[in-house]
Amino acid sequence: MLILLTNDDGIFSPGLAGLYRELVALGEVQVVAPASVESATSHGITLKAPLLTSRVTIPGAFTGTAVDGRPADCVKLAVSQVLPRRPDLMVSGINAGANVGINVLYSGTVAAAIEGAFLGLPSIAVSQHLRGEASPDYGLAAKLARETIEQILAAGLGPRQVATVNLPVLKTGESPAGVKIVRQCTRAWGDTYERRRDPRGHDYFWNTSVFALNTDEEDTDVAALRDGYVTITPLQFDLTNHALLGEWSRKKWSGFQNG
Amino acid sequence: MLILLTNDDGIFSPGLAGLYRELVALGEVQVVAPASVESATSHGITLKAPLLTSRVTIPGAFTGTAVDGRPADCVKLAVSQVLPRRPDLMVSGINAGANVGINVLYSGTVAAAIEGAFLGLPSIAVSQHLRGEASPDYGLAAKLARETIEQILAAGLGPRQVATVNLPVLKTGESPAGVKIVRQCTRAWGDTYERRRDPRGHDYFWNTSVFALNTDEEDTDVAALRDGYVTITPLQFDLTNHALLGEWSRKKWSGFQNG
Repeated sequence: MLILLTNDDGIFSPGLAGLYRELVALGEVQVVAPASVESATSHGITLKAPLLTSRVTIPGAFTGTAVDGRPADCVKLAVSQVLPRRPDLMVSGINAGANVGINVLYSGTVAAAIEGAFLGLPSIAVSQHLRGEASPDYGLAAKLARETIEQILAAGLGPRQVATVNLPVLKTGESPAGVKIVRQCTRAWGDTYERRRDPRGHDYFWNTSVFALNTDEEDTDVAALRDGYVTITPLQFDLTNHALLGEWSRKKWSGFQNG
Repeated sequence: MLILLTNDDGIFSPGLAGLYRELVALGEVQVVAPASVESATSHGITLKAPLLTSRVTIPGAFTGTAVDGRPADCVKLAVSQVLPRRPDLMVSGINAGANVGINVLYSGTVAAAIEGAFLGLPSIAVSQHLRGEASPDYGLAAKLARETIEQILAAGLGPRQVATVNLPVLKTGESPAGVKIVRQCTRAWGDTYERRRDPRGHDYFWNTSVFALNTDEEDTDVAALRDGYVTITPLQFDLTNHALLGEWSRKKWSGFQNG
């Protein structure tokens, strides 16, 4: 099995190296990842600039390809140009920070997996919930991630299918509460900003939002992660609102003829 | 009615000014848009840098707020900080280029509208298909856009609901073939790259993909736009694959207990 591994925190991220070390138990792993941190870049792609590449060696882990682009660029370029053959599986992560709720749409980690699915691959994104400033134990997280990926593959993840995994905060020796298959919470976060004034009198704003795992929708990724579970959410990339599509299709629309 | 208008081509884009001039027929319009071109930035947001703002006047159109950020940042900041009160409608566009098929996921124009919906607003994205190098007639496009927006509002677009509109290539005096309510095509585009070598021996790659309106899925946005229709697609932002969620929920998952 050939596995394409990428992320959005960049090729030097410890979460990427940790996941690499576990995934080699499942097959050959090739890394094609952003050269720099590309958090919250969502599904951005690079069309009007060239994608510079370089080879990067992470001691004790891998030699991979760094791409001066976004996570989705890495997946496109890997499949089209870098890998020796078509991969059998695409994995993205481990992201430093949970990607639950509407953060699923902001996340470059998840976007990379969706791009893999566009290209016909079974694709899995993995994110680690953080609490406080302490760096997580990525060795432990990667082991959990690999076990979860094995279970997802056993459950059956086909071409063009995507799953996203979130790992709860754990200390060494702890176990998660269990595994939950949950839907994406679609509640808005409350946005807050701090307004400042620059020396020339222009306003500027820092985003001060804190993404807490608060929800009263108990069947969601947000609630399950809050409760200490490993969450698995199967994703899709048809953004059509089919209910509204059906409703609107039955209405009469004016056709914009001349006059 | 207070309308928030943004885009991803930047505050100086002629598509934005054109749409502004038409939307003032529907209510008060306030522009909060990216300071520079933010095409294909999808739903990226800015968390680790401040959002610089400035006031910009486009002669013959508007004075608005330019934000040194991405389209979704503009929507968040507008609703949270810039606008005098909560808007009744959010409009994004007119984008220079169609946003159909999987481009819906790459598009900053569409992401802005989805962000508006996160925040509880009825939200509409508008994009103009381009063919060749000629600049489109944004006056004509904006008139079509305004008529389409009026129809969508009449059909009923609620809070947290999103519609995306694509306008066909038209010459002055021409009319579209009609209006079609269509689903998003989910076919992959074929990615192509041109590989070059820099003077120091590193490979770099230009994306050379051409996004043609080719599909055999006749009930989609891609096919309808190809055939000269104004397309309307209602969107949603729950990425859960509910069919697979149901299937996987009935399986037995191992719970990662110790040992």
